[in-house]
Amino acid sequence: MKTVKIGLLGIGNVGSGAFQIFSLNSASIAKASGCEITVSGVLARSKNKKRDIDINPEIITDDPDEIIKNPEIDIVVEALGGIEPATTFMLSAMKNGKHVVTANKAAIAANYDKLTEAAAENGVQFKFEASVGGGIPILNAIDTVLRGNEFTEIMGIVNGTTNYILTKMAEEKLPYDVALKNAQELGFAEADPTADVEGIDVANKLTILMALAFGQYIKPENIPTTGISKITAADIEAAALKGCKIKLIAHAKMNGTSCSDCAEKGKLEYSVKPMLLPNDHPLAGVSNEFNAVFITGNAVGELMFYGRGAGAMPTGSAVVGDVIEIAKSFK
Amino acid sequence: MKTVKIGLLGIGNVGSGAFQIFSLNSASIAKASGCEITVSGVLARSKNKKRDIDINPEIITDDPDEIIKNPEIDIVVEALGGIEPATTFMLSAMKNGKHVVTANKAAIAANYDKLTEAAAENGVQFKFEASVGGGIPILNAIDTVLRGNEFTEIMGIVNGTTNYILTKMAEEKLPYDVALKNAQELGFAEADPTADVEGIDVANKLTILMALAFGQYIKPENIPTTGISKITAADIEAAALKGCKIKLIAHAKMNGTSCSDCAEKGKLEYSVKPMLLPNDHPLAGVSNEFNAVFITGNAVGELMFYGRGAGAMPTGSAVVGDVIEIAKSFK
Repeated sequence: MKTVKIGLLGIGNVGSGAFQIFSLNSASIAKASGCEITVSGVLARSKNKKRDIDINPEIITDDPDEIIKNPEIDIVVEALGGIEPATTFMLSAMKNGKHVVTANKAAIAANYDKLTEAAAENGVQFKFEASVGGGIPILNAIDTVLRGNEFTEIMGIVNGTTNYILTKMAEEKLPYDVALKNAQELGFAEADPTADVEGIDVANKLTILMALAFGQYIKPENIPTTGISKITAADIEAAALKGCKIKLIAHAKMNGTSCSDCAEKGKLEYSVKPMLLPNDHPLAGVSNEFNAVFITGNAVGELMFYGRGAGAMPTGSAVVGDVIEIAKSFK
Repeated sequence: MKTVKIGLLGIGNVGSGAFQIFSLNSASIAKASGCEITVSGVLARSKNKKRDIDINPEIITDDPDEIIKNPEIDIVVEALGGIEPATTFMLSAMKNGKHVVTANKAAIAANYDKLTEAAAENGVQFKFEASVGGGIPILNAIDTVLRGNEFTEIMGIVNGTTNYILTKMAEEKLPYDVALKNAQELGFAEADPTADVEGIDVANKLTILMALAFGQYIKPENIPTTGISKITAADIEAAALKGCKIKLIAHAKMNGTSCSDCAEKGKLEYSVKPMLLPNDHPLAGVSNEFNAVFITGNAVGELMFYGRGAGAMPTGSAVVGDVIEIAKSFK
């Protein structure tokens, strides 16, 4: 059985989730991939920091080149987060002939063109299922078994923090500030919640969804984006009286699919904003930290994918799935 | 650009859906697969029957060997339905070096071992995304990006006819017989509804789901199966009073995942039967002819896939998706 060696950049939430899954499910992963997959390098700030997971300190390094430029490593898993240095590391890994897997929506959204071109130029695979919807296998579905469709619309609840806050505001009639504080105490929101509550994280994910589904790379800063920080308890109550819920929605719609000769045909419209959804809309029932993506294709009709959009193990599941798909080509 | 030639066995509901999609979305299919995919042979009883779709009569044949044994054809799409002669045709196509795509749950469930072994022996691909959940891309997800998981449970609403009948019984307080007749008039149920209402179709699909998710081939006749024909309006009303819905569920559960040393650990339990689901269960909101599959993995947690489980275009979407995936290997 061929051995495939993984280098892990970062051992935070996502990195440690993937690391644990490689060990927990090693037998089924080997069966599915046809390879023995081992993590043989981990980039971390400190060799000896106390960690919840058991990592041989000999594979830990604080020098990224020991992973990116290591001829022994086949696949680099980037789990640092943030645009830089993650993008530079991924480009360098590709130049060194390594396949790259990442969960990093900010880096992909900012540099989708550079990263996909570098992968093509260097003949390596670049996979990022975990970047949208955590463990929900939406990107692979769009890019493989749904390719018989032309897509007409995407609506996604793709940020667990804001969905948790909106759910608590509706269910417990809490004001925004209290619901946010509540989410921070439970670890569902960060100390600085700006990227989540102002819709920046959702815009990054919409950039990735649109690039795959519609083949158009629209940078997140060009997506009209409104977050949830101005939503009040009164807004939510007014929505409830209309039989609706307020959800923060990543929305993209291909115009003119029903008007064969209008000028706007084929024009993609997109936004990130709080939307009123009737209670019987499939997305209205997606509560708390759960994510869901509703997608419409001209053959398949309406589909919805629902699951855990964050967390070490669900996100790690998607990273490991991508690694397995790449490892199959080593068999 | 390489041309990939498809032979279509049968041009009923599924076959004509796939045929239409190849033409409707030809540009995006070519882009995704890197190949020009053409349907170059169609098995049908009559060359000159009036059809809703426009097929060049020269590619129609009533001799299966003109497709199965035609050296020009790369991929055979089996869309006849039923166990035989479909299984024999698929085995013969594989022996002749052709990749096989099918939507035929009855044939796969009856002969999963023979068909997968024949594909492996002959070095061809065998794909059947359309066989469970129509256009919902559940099988590919289980077999690719979710392989980092060990699965613990599957619950599926995978038969649109019975879900339609149960929905109408609940929403319009109809007795079973009236709801069935209603479904038959609208084309959601067949004149002889036995395979649907007695759960046979659902058992076929559970066999396929279990084979992929748990690696165990359990024949449908060995699955304890109860249909919906004995469900009364009173049962549904009693369920509603408890805050529940009755749904026909394909259920499989890996035992003992939470008891590390019990004797039953690793024992798969499975059934097809009407189950009471609380109204806030994600599957309780799946109405009418829609299908959904709820699956739990030890890393990803709970996932749900929702969409149209039948119909020419949704089922055709899955067939075309499988063909595209195979065509990529011809590039």
